[in-house]
Amino acid sequence: MNNQEVKLRSERAFNGRIFDVDVDNVLLPDGSRSVRECVRHPGGAAVLFIKDGKVALVGQFRYLYGVSTLEIPAGRLEKGEDPACAALRELEEETGYRAENCRHLIDLYPTPGYTDEIIHIYSVDGENAKFVGERPDEGEFLNVTFVPLDDLINDVHRGKINDAKTVCAVLMYESIKRADI
Amino acid sequence: MNNQEVKLRSERAFNGRIFDVDVDNVLLPDGSRSVRECVRHPGGAAVLFIKDGKVALVGQFRYLYGVSTLEIPAGRLEKGEDPACAALRELEEETGYRAENCRHLIDLYPTPGYTDEIIHIYSVDGENAKFVGERPDEGEFLNVTFVPLDDLINDVHRGKINDAKTVCAVLMYESIKRADI
Repeated sequence: MNNQEVKLRSERAFNGRIFDVDVDNVLLPDGSRSVRECVRHPGGAAVLFIKDGKVALVGQFRYLYGVSTLEIPAGRLEKGEDPACAALRELEEETGYRAENCRHLIDLYPTPGYTDEIIHIYSVDGENAKFVGERPDEGEFLNVTFVPLDDLINDVHRGKINDAKTVCAVLMYESIKRADI
Repeated sequence: MNNQEVKLRSERAFNGRIFDVDVDNVLLPDGSRSVRECVRHPGGAAVLFIKDGKVALVGQFRYLYGVSTLEIPAGRLEKGEDPACAALRELEEETGYRAENCRHLIDLYPTPGYTDEIIHIYSVDGENAKFVGERPDEGEFLNVTFVPLDDLINDVHRGKINDAKTVCAVLMYESIKRADI
């Protein structure tokens, strides 16, 4: 089925620091026209870091929800940055642990109706990481805790973890591990 | 830890049909000030519909990624609409199946750094639904397929499903089912 939509015209409606917004006029498959509102984002990287059976979570106030959340370390890609490198950079900035390698878990489209962001998620085994000092990224007011994997899965089941990348990373890790057995 | 951020001023930067954008000036916990770019969205509802061991997926061209995706039925909340009602409405609009009840699976924050959207996800058992006719929502150019749950889990593992709500719904359903055993 040819279901593609073709861009006719694009107009920058908002220029931000975190994202931009374009309003695009598109041609639909049936020949009619429509409008697509597009949040343009450089993409993100996140890392499920497991040390001694515990997962590193960052406690962070999320202004948009007015609540504190627990999320795996993550951040925006810098210009031209490889997603795996970004994940390792964020891990070190947010937890102080340095690793050389990570394993790709999944790429997520967080909300494909209006953003083009891809969140690249990796896992890192704590045995392959070393603590290299205090967190350099103090400006973010981050707060790292280590939660046993089974407790975290229970927290996901009970609706206490809502961040999509964190839910996906934890459940994906569990699901793959079980499939390997 | 008091890590809250307090709104000082908010300015509407973009008025859209799908979302708006506010730029807020905020007071940080250390007394300094910063800016938060906020995509304002009414929220969404999604439903994992499983009939005879198969999951209903909607094939849809996603303009922002330039690809077709497979996603569970979902859509925006209408003004004042209960999320569970919205999930059942979307199920019927997109698949033609009508159900009276659904089970809450999880609420997701798709990308909490810049949107306030909550995606409310439910599951519906096909035994409690009946087909009530053709899809009324033809304007969306949707395309529904039913995929066996185990095949879908394999597709998630192999990186073939990227939509966050779909990945979370499938893995959550699997994880809860196993925890119940």
